[in-house]
Parts: sequence; C-alpha cells; structure tokens
Amino acid sequence: MFMRIDHIGIACRDLEEKIELFSSLFELEVVAREVNEEQGVKEAMLHVADGEGGGSYIQLLEPLSEDSPVGKFIAKRGEGVHHVAFGVPDVEGAMATIGGKGVRLLDERPRHGSMGSRIAFLHPKDVGGMLTELVEAAKQQ
Amino acid sequence: MFMRIDHIGIACRDLEEKIELFSSLFELEVVAREVNEEQGVKEAMLHVADGEGGGSYIQLLEPLSEDSPVGKFIAKRGEGVHHVAFGVPDVEGAMATIGGKGVRLLDERPRHGSMGSRIAFLHPKDVGGMLTELVEAAKQQ
Repeated sequence: MFMRIDHIGIACRDLEEKIELFSSLFELEVVAREVNEEQGVKEAMLHVADGEGGGSYIQLLEPLSEDSPVGKFIAKRGEGVHHVAFGVPDVEGAMATIGGKGVRLLDERPRHGSMGSRIAFLHPKDVGGMLTELVEAAKQQ
Repeated sequence: MFMRIDHIGIACRDLEEKIELFSSLFELEVVAREVNEEQGVKEAMLHVADGEGGGSYIQLLEPLSEDSPVGKFIAKRGEGVHHVAFGVPDVEGAMATIGGKGVRLLDERPRHGSMGSRIAFLHPKDVGGMLTELVEAAKQQ
C-alpha cells in the first residue's frame, strides 16, 4: 500500500527562517513553494531523496492565521512535527481500504496537496496519535 | 548528506497492540524487534519501502519505564511521533558537520540503534522543534 515515506510536515512560525535553517544544516534544496489557502498554510518542500516509489521531502508549513489548523497546533504544542505523509499509488483506493478498517478519514474526498498531488488525512486518534496523510503524487508529464 | 528518511519513531503505550494496528491498517511487515536498555525502550521496525539510499521504516517504541525519555514523552504529550531519523553515509562525519554549524548534539559519540545501526540525536530546539536522529545503517554482509 505504501510506496514511500513521502514527507514529514513540520509546523513553523517563520517559513523563510526555517527554509534557511534546514537547507543550511542539512544541505537540502527547496524544490517547491506554494500557498495553500484551503489548508491555511504557506509551505515549502525540501528534497531529501528519491526512491523507486518516488521522492521524499521535508515540508515546512507556516500558518496563514492563528485560527488555522497549523496555527492552533503551534499555539498548543509549539513548532515541530505536524504530520507524516505516505505515498500511495491510488489515494481513493487507499482511503477506501483504510476507511473500511474503521479509521476515520478527515477528508471525504481527496484534496489538493503539494506539487500537484492528491491527498487525504486520517484521524490521528485512529493511527497511534500520528496525524497521517496519504499522498498520490502528480502524474509525471 | 541525507540518503533517505530512515524512519518515523512513534511512542506508544503497548507495542504489541500498535504492531497489530499498523501492520493490519497499512499492510506493513515487522522486520525487527529488540529491547534497547540504553534507551529504555522495546521496539519494532515495520518496513515501508526501499530506495537507493536504503530502507524506510515505521519504528514503534514502548517505554520500559515511566521515567525513561519515551515514558516522559508519553506522559507529557501522549502517544504519537517521537522523532524522525535520516539516513547518512557516515554518522561521525554528519555529527561533525552539523555540530560545527551550532546544533547541539545529544550524543557525544554514536550509540547503538535499531538493526545494528549507529545513531546520534540532535537537540530538537536547534532543528525546528523536531527531535532528529542521524542513522548510519549496518554494513550489509
């Protein structure tokens, strides 16, 4: 079902500061930036590695407002790991399989993720306390 | 510097229960189990994927006592993501490079990690709130 660990999503107060930190500490390159109004974040993807199942990234997330999900997360828990995303070949199929095992889906249907991907979140209480994202990467042109 | 996201370390109260959960939900296979007295945990590695830079895993961690680091983490924050580990070719080299940039190392020298690896932790406050582990995998025989 899982082809890769797609990314680690890290909540941060200042995106530019954390891009500078992570890229300088770990020699990682920013491969995408975008604002996702629906999720209330501006974000950057830093490339870690490639594998047969696709790329792995660190995703840095700055909330657009304090009452967004990531804004509330930082207010409660501080900066740090917000979610973990796993690559799947077919996000609807994975949602159906995992939802059929009793895990609550936070999305009824896939929504727009980083770099043209289609994503869905699973309820952390049903996955050992880990906010879990399923990612179907964009088809390569 | 980073060859892969090596693993996501997840703190849990009951290792066997969470092995059952993660393996049944996500069709993951347990490839190693061990007790690490030094770190105060019993643990299991569930294989997610392989890449050019090595394997990626979910690591489940049950504390051996309440006053161990993982025991204190669960008491304070509940079950969930405890740390993120990145594969490096040379853990001493990575420690020297990253430490030389001002990041506090939680280990003066590498210690024993899962499956014969050599590991070192970085201070989360210097890495955006993420407890970060460097992993040099065991040499394949």
